[in-house]
Amino acid sequence: MPAEYKGVVPETEHARETDLGFARIDIDRARRTGDPEVVFGEGKTPEQVVATLRALHRAHPDRAVLATRLSDEARELCRRELSGAAVDDVGRTAVLGPPPAPKGSVAVVSAGTCDLPVVLECVATVRAFGSRAEVVGDVGVAGLHRLLAQRERIAGCHVVVAVAGMEAALPSVLGGLIGLPLIAVPTSVGYGWHLDGLTAWLAVLNSCAPGVVSVNVDNGFGAGVAAARIARCAGPGAV
Amino acid sequence: MPAEYKGVVPETEHARETDLGFARIDIDRARRTGDPEVVFGEGKTPEQVVATLRALHRAHPDRAVLATRLSDEARELCRRELSGAAVDDVGRTAVLGPPPAPKGSVAVVSAGTCDLPVVLECVATVRAFGSRAEVVGDVGVAGLHRLLAQRERIAGCHVVVAVAGMEAALPSVLGGLIGLPLIAVPTSVGYGWHLDGLTAWLAVLNSCAPGVVSVNVDNGFGAGVAAARIARCAGPGAV
Amino acid sequence: MPAEYKGVVPETEHARETDLGFARIDIDRARRTGDPEVVFGEGKTPEQVVATLRALHRAHPDRAVLATRLSDEARELCRRELSGAAVDDVGRTAVLGPPPAPKGSVAVVSAGTCDLPVVLECVATVRAFGSRAEVVGDVGVAGLHRLLAQRERIAGCHVVVAVAGMEAALPSVLGGLIGLPLIAVPTSVGYGWHLDGLTAWLAVLNSCAPGVVSVNVDNGFGAGVAAARIARCAGPGAV
Amino acid sequence: MPAEYKGVVPETEHARETDLGFARIDIDRARRTGDPEVVFGEGKTPEQVVATLRALHRAHPDRAVLATRLSDEARELCRRELSGAAVDDVGRTAVLGPPPAPKGSVAVVSAGTCDLPVVLECVATVRAFGSRAEVVGDVGVAGLHRLLAQRERIAGCHVVVAVAGMEAALPSVLGGLIGLPLIAVPTSVGYGWHLDGLTAWLAVLNSCAPGVVSVNVDNGFGAGVAAARIARCAGPGAV
Amino acid sequence: MPAEYKGVVPETEHARETDLGFARIDIDRARRTGDPEVVFGEGKTPEQVVATLRALHRAHPDRAVLATRLSDEARELCRRELSGAAVDDVGRTAVLGPPPAPKGSVAVVSAGTCDLPVVLECVATVRAFGSRAEVVGDVGVAGLHRLLAQRERIAGCHVVVAVAGMEAALPSVLGGLIGLPLIAVPTSVGYGWHLDGLTAWLAVLNSCAPGVVSVNVDNGFGAGVAAARIARCAGPGAV
Amino acid sequence: MPAEYKGVVPETEHARETDLGFARIDIDRARRTGDPEVVFGEGKTPEQVVATLRALHRAHPDRAVLATRLSDEARELCRRELSGAAVDDVGRTAVLGPPPAPKGSVAVVSAGTCDLPVVLECVATVRAFGSRAEVVGDVGVAGLHRLLAQRERIAGCHVVVAVAGMEAALPSVLGGLIGLPLIAVPTSVGYGWHLDGLTAWLAVLNSCAPGVVSVNVDNGFGAGVAAARIARCAGPGAV
Amino acid sequence: MPAEYKGVVPETEHARETDLGFARIDIDRARRTGDPEVVFGEGKTPEQVVATLRALHRAHPDRAVLATRLSDEARELCRRELSGAAVDDVGRTAVLGPPPAPKGSVAVVSAGTCDLPVVLECVATVRAFGSRAEVVGDVGVAGLHRLLAQRERIAGCHVVVAVAGMEAALPSVLGGLIGLPLIAVPTSVGYGWHLDGLTAWLAVLNSCAPGVVSVNVDNGFGAGVAAARIARCAGPGAV
Amino acid sequence: MPAEYKGVVPETEHARETDLGFARIDIDRARRTGDPEVVFGEGKTPEQVVATLRALHRAHPDRAVLATRLSDEARELCRRELSGAAVDDVGRTAVLGPPPAPKGSVAVVSAGTCDLPVVLECVATVRAFGSRAEVVGDVGVAGLHRLLAQRERIAGCHVVVAVAGMEAALPSVLGGLIGLPLIAVPTSVGYGWHLDGLTAWLAVLNSCAPGVVSVNVDNGFGAGVAAARIARCAGPGAV
Repeated sequence: MPAEYKGVVPETEHARETDLGFARIDIDRARRTGDPEVVFGEGKTPEQVVATLRALHRAHPDRAVLATRLSDEARELCRRELSGAAVDDVGRTAVLGPPPAPKGSVAVVSAGTCDLPVVLECVATVRAFGSRAEVVGDVGVAGLHRLLAQRERIAGCHVVVAVAGMEAALPSVLGGLIGLPLIAVPTSVGYGWHLDGLTAWLAVLNSCAPGVVSVNVDNGFGAGVAAARIARCAGPGAV
Repeated sequence: MPAEYKGVVPETEHARETDLGFARIDIDRARRTGDPEVVFGEGKTPEQVVATLRALHRAHPDRAVLATRLSDEARELCRRELSGAAVDDVGRTAVLGPPPAPKGSVAVVSAGTCDLPVVLECVATVRAFGSRAEVVGDVGVAGLHRLLAQRERIAGCHVVVAVAGMEAALPSVLGGLIGLPLIAVPTSVGYGWHLDGLTAWLAVLNSCAPGVVSVNVDNGFGAGVAAARIARCAGPGAV
Repeated sequence: MPAEYKGVVPETEHARETDLGFARIDIDRARRTGDPEVVFGEGKTPEQVVATLRALHRAHPDRAVLATRLSDEARELCRRELSGAAVDDVGRTAVLGPPPAPKGSVAVVSAGTCDLPVVLECVATVRAFGSRAEVVGDVGVAGLHRLLAQRERIAGCHVVVAVAGMEAALPSVLGGLIGLPLIAVPTSVGYGWHLDGLTAWLAVLNSCAPGVVSVNVDNGFGAGVAAARIARCAGPGAV
Repeated sequence: MPAEYKGVVPETEHARETDLGFARIDIDRARRTGDPEVVFGEGKTPEQVVATLRALHRAHPDRAVLATRLSDEARELCRRELSGAAVDDVGRTAVLGPPPAPKGSVAVVSAGTCDLPVVLECVATVRAFGSRAEVVGDVGVAGLHRLLAQRERIAGCHVVVAVAGMEAALPSVLGGLIGLPLIAVPTSVGYGWHLDGLTAWLAVLNSCAPGVVSVNVDNGFGAGVAAARIARCAGPGAV
Repeated sequence: MPAEYKGVVPETEHARETDLGFARIDIDRARRTGDPEVVFGEGKTPEQVVATLRALHRAHPDRAVLATRLSDEARELCRRELSGAAVDDVGRTAVLGPPPAPKGSVAVVSAGTCDLPVVLECVATVRAFGSRAEVVGDVGVAGLHRLLAQRERIAGCHVVVAVAGMEAALPSVLGGLIGLPLIAVPTSVGYGWHLDGLTAWLAVLNSCAPGVVSVNVDNGFGAGVAAARIARCAGPGAV
Repeated sequence: MPAEYKGVVPETEHARETDLGFARIDIDRARRTGDPEVVFGEGKTPEQVVATLRALHRAHPDRAVLATRLSDEARELCRRELSGAAVDDVGRTAVLGPPPAPKGSVAVVSAGTCDLPVVLECVATVRAFGSRAEVVGDVGVAGLHRLLAQRERIAGCHVVVAVAGMEAALPSVLGGLIGLPLIAVPTSVGYGWHLDGLTAWLAVLNSCAPGVVSVNVDNGFGAGVAAARIARCAGPGAV
Repeated sequence: MPAEYKGVVPETEHARETDLGFARIDIDRARRTGDPEVVFGEGKTPEQVVATLRALHRAHPDRAVLATRLSDEARELCRRELSGAAVDDVGRTAVLGPPPAPKGSVAVVSAGTCDLPVVLECVATVRAFGSRAEVVGDVGVAGLHRLLAQRERIAGCHVVVAVAGMEAALPSVLGGLIGLPLIAVPTSVGYGWHLDGLTAWLAVLNSCAPGVVSVNVDNGFGAGVAAARIARCAGPGAV
Repeated sequence: MPAEYKGVVPETEHARETDLGFARIDIDRARRTGDPEVVFGEGKTPEQVVATLRALHRAHPDRAVLATRLSDEARELCRRELSGAAVDDVGRTAVLGPPPAPKGSVAVVSAGTCDLPVVLECVATVRAFGSRAEVVGDVGVAGLHRLLAQRERIAGCHVVVAVAGMEAALPSVLGGLIGLPLIAVPTSVGYGWHLDGLTAWLAVLNSCAPGVVSVNVDNGFGAGVAAARIARCAGPGAV
């Protein structure tokens, strides 16, 4: 790396947040609202992940720091080096530090076990961002009775995240059953030609149920951030 | 048109079926099975449509001849010139001659009134090809109770044609409720960016319900042909 | 239309909501939450639009009924036939009956005047669905000072709807400035090859700001429904 | 996996079918019609595949259970652990338990040896779903005489499944020769730029032969389910 | 138009060929081989078309000048102003001056009457470029007997041009029957979702018959140029 | 338009530039560098175009104001209402006020007359942005001698804009002949299936000549802005 | 493999050609014209490749048999097991038996060394199919002088195959320089985003030079077959 | 490799530049302007890379030779074999020989550390092509304050290269802040469905800031060549 680039690349994400006066406001807001620091693991070495998590945790010992999209090696190193870290091998996340007291609740609904990695990335995000997550699995539209049986449980939350691959019919059916804010996460799950999730993506954007919003394919993190922000405004008396 | 092309272009579709000995077998099969002659109206003048229908009817006075994708002008001329023709302005079809006695029945199911042109093209085709058509409309997945209320009626048929635009969730939900052969017709209906039906097309091909087959976007005719062929083999005692 | 189809096609949307006992719950929920009846104008004749609005208004005289995507002719007929209707020629909407008392507020932010039709469709929807709408226009990212000048005003709302065409950079910049729930509406506005909004669509789904959710291209209605549902849960003391 | 997710993920597919009273009807229908239980192998460990097959077989010892898309390891474990399982390495399927007595017959027609995996997945499915499968291979359209020589044999079945890659001309040629219900399976087979089967997919959906229906690329399973359902209704005296 | 652009835009195509010494060689080659001057009508006014044809004809009175893609108005003006011009309303071409004595022959084969405009553009081009054109129409693959009946006639030519829309199976079937050089012209003809000819285009490029080459969608002119160049080298004794 | 939107929509572009202190710097920079005010005509009424041009001209009487993408009606009104405006019907531009003294020069090179609208939009932009434009037309790669004959003239400029449709080979050939900064403008010109310019767009971005940069399809304006900015830094003594 | 499939899958390609009386005509034609038997290596085991080549060579000891798309292992086994086989590691081909005496000649022209595999597959095919191949490499359009220096050599052949990746400008430039039949082979060669050859593919199909035909991306074999068929008809006295 | 191909494939790039008299002009131009020889590493063996660099360096000992897209093995061999070579493992480049004295300066601006490989490829190219490169990293639009803090530094250069992945909003924001020539490099960086950089590519081509030009996805080399050519014409007194 050329010499002059040194100093431009921040050693940790934390550095980005503190080396400018302007940014302090953001940190204050984060503490107030429950938004945690986040480390995206994709393209980082295990050592970088661990070092960043450690530095952020030292700066914010009283609230959770979240890491997502961790490789097998990164998760293993987190387990070994960061005592107290909660590491999830399916959702590929790690959390260090205590999650905030949850405000409001998010129903994370999905059709099949194939969508579990996305579901669990979303769940970890919702909790780190300060809300409660209710997991409602195995309720695909091809077995409607299973979905109808969970209707009341879902309706008791403040926001719904519908995780769905293949033809992604779940958000439309849910949108017709329940009047809550509904975030669809199309997934790249499928058994044939589904264009890496384009099918599911197009489907959720063309849902016949009004008011369905969506995030990128497989983006459980993005849906979790949005859902927690919405659920939190439901106040302390939620669920 | 250059002189030497004359004679190569058939005057009527009927000509194609009789000027070669080989083809007579097909005509026999058609009479036996109830497959009618068909005139595709797209790209034909009103006069060509009427002349072809008249010639085919004269050759087969005892069974229906079907014309599809007729322009406003073509349908008007059919009404004026062909007494006894049944012309449908929504499905854009015309039928001349008596339909065959129906064998078996086809449930043509759809979500909204926007899909009506495709539904009615399918209905006219099913009847001309020798089966009964049951229309079950307004049962979109965003209002599940309406669909569930029609379940028994649909299950009483021999084949299901599910016509669906937007995110086309209907075939998947139907496929989970009913074990009949199921043909999905994606439609180019939608209120936003749906890529002229690509969304619906991808959705039905990725249905989580096993055994769903499909035809091209808006192809009510193709679905009707396939459905009638299947329903007819259910024998004379059907419904 | 074949005789047996009569009775299947509902005369008005209202019919759909009352002919089944199951649906009454939805109506009750609607009255409680402020979700209005909606008439999609696309593909409907002016007469159908007016008749449906009138029937729905008679059934719910105490709250607003919304119609969207109205043609020039439909809007003209609404003005002539429906006294008291609020008709907007830019947003192509009509509202009949009193809007509910607003709960919470939505900032509808956009870059240019070309996006006005989408902005105003969203605004009418937000109000009909029971929330307040703040319009913040002309704050494109190529003139950052204009956006920064409106920052406080936007941050004072409960939800942000960012309407953006071309490369749709606005949601990302907003997402970095303000921690509210943020719904992006990509628009098909552009001066060159932008694939009818695909560019904007892809951009908002790949926003570098976490938690941005989106709706279909030009879907101001969908964004309005989602935004109002979120803003309403902020309680009666909002703004 | 977080503790609260336990209990939501079903241990076996069978669990899904019996833990709800509603589902018993489906099981009864399955027994009546011959629809077997199916295990999709994609994304499952060899141990999961074997455990699920064993549990389903115990619940339904008198009829076949089908597993598809099995990895090399999963097929090896099936052979070692499940005595009596019929494992096919080309079609990547396993069947445990006796197939139902076949009703009707399905001609599975293909052009080349490259399509064999799809052909054999379809064949195993047809048999497990209760119909007879006739394999007619090596009849590509570039060698028309081979196809014409098999015409009578194909016409003697009740349904045709046409498996075809590259430009997928086979279904169109077959559709012109034989009047049976015809299901096309586009495959991702090709020697150059064919977009992973898009070429074949578009081709079968635009077939000039009326009534051709299709499934997703390489989906021999889906075609087999649909074909068997159609062929079975041809009654016990078939072939 | 700014003043300095004058003089850069050539008044006629002919000007391009003669104002540079370099180009004279091309003209000599053209005279020797039979390549005519060509005027592309798209985007030209009727007056421009007629003026260019007249100028080129004056420069080359002894051989044909070809104009393609002519609008209705342009063809009408050609008829009125250019005595002796052969104008074809289906192929949208005009030819002025005597065609060269034909060398070799080209079979222009097509499935349906919808492809006639492309067929006739190709025919006019083949003749103007110095070869004979045999039109073989109405031989779609869904009626194989018609194609087989024309096999000898096609095989008697030196090159085959196969014009085909929808799923474009014709070139593959022809390629298996006849060993001649074969140029496929995909057309944008179809009754459903065919992506303006992409389906046919992909199909011909993935033909299972080796040695099939192709031109752009609907490009009868390009195929005609290539076919004539190939056929001409078959020598004076052809056909 | 709802009442509260008034005042948010600026009356003229000029308003955007002056109502905030921050913006004055930009205006100063513009005066110093020669960047003019620009009015995009697309989506504006003729009256809006004329009013905006007039207001901007009044604010900057000493330098040119440019309007692009003007409709036939807008150009007619400009001619009638704005004395002194230079209106170009091919490039669809209007310029009001004296262009700045040119610094440096830009060669605008193109293959055919079809590309003229893009060429002339670029020329008007280059001049309004303060540089000289040399038009070099009719130098397509299929007639290489014409291009080679203009080589010296092109090499005498400071920047090259290569406007090219169809397969857009021109920028690559130019890039190999001349070492100047080279901006390619793909155009949507073509005679067959070219996907509205995608072909040309992909081609210029994959040019085998290093250092070719590009703008959007048909974007003569964008290329003109970039070219003028580059050419101007070549100093006052240019050409 | 299920037992009943045995006998349907041919042991060798040769079996396909002799087990039907109809096919003998093809064999006779092949002997007369010089078309060899071909083995596509993709998806075949090294043992299958060698066995098939050996069987075909035994059936036709007096003329070449060609194998293409051979894996490293297959080529190694060919070298070891088939004495006398000519194996090319760059073009990935093997030839067994004497090539026919060449008739006519084909110029195989390319821009860079990256295209060599496609060039050499084409060369081996041209020779096995009975024509002479002239390789003209390293003549990319970004270095026009190198192409111009080879012009006479190319023009001395009967057909041109232009192999080109990236923006594929070579066929257009060649088409303007030389009046021979010209087959373009787009290649998937490129240094950035070129969509696996789509860029080159679109470019050659939109060539501004009339009469350019093309084959699939990287399909040197297909171009070789077509080129040889054309070149052979130029008679025994060629070159 | 067939014997006749020998001699056509150049041993080194240098050979291409000197074996034709015509090319000497290019070499002279290169020496005059500072354009170095370049070796593209993709598809070359480590030995080929080292041999070519060595040969080119011997021919031009007094100026830099640049190699790009080097594999790990190639870079290792460069380090071992070429003393004095500057090898960059992130940008994957090697430079041999002294870079020219820089003229003008280029700001290479990027949002995140993921874009570093593209940034550093661009930096090495800018320097080898004779200009100065200023790296400005970590200034993504979601943290606007960081970008605003670097504004003056960027504005002090002569050209801006904006490297941006995901939704690529950076060039638009920069284009609104700074009036310099601006080259955007879309990158294939992203955390979800971004179509390998298509999102960023479409975004930069639809930038709302006028005058933004772009290169292919991840093409830091191309941007560097263009930027250096522009910056160099700013004269010796730059920065």
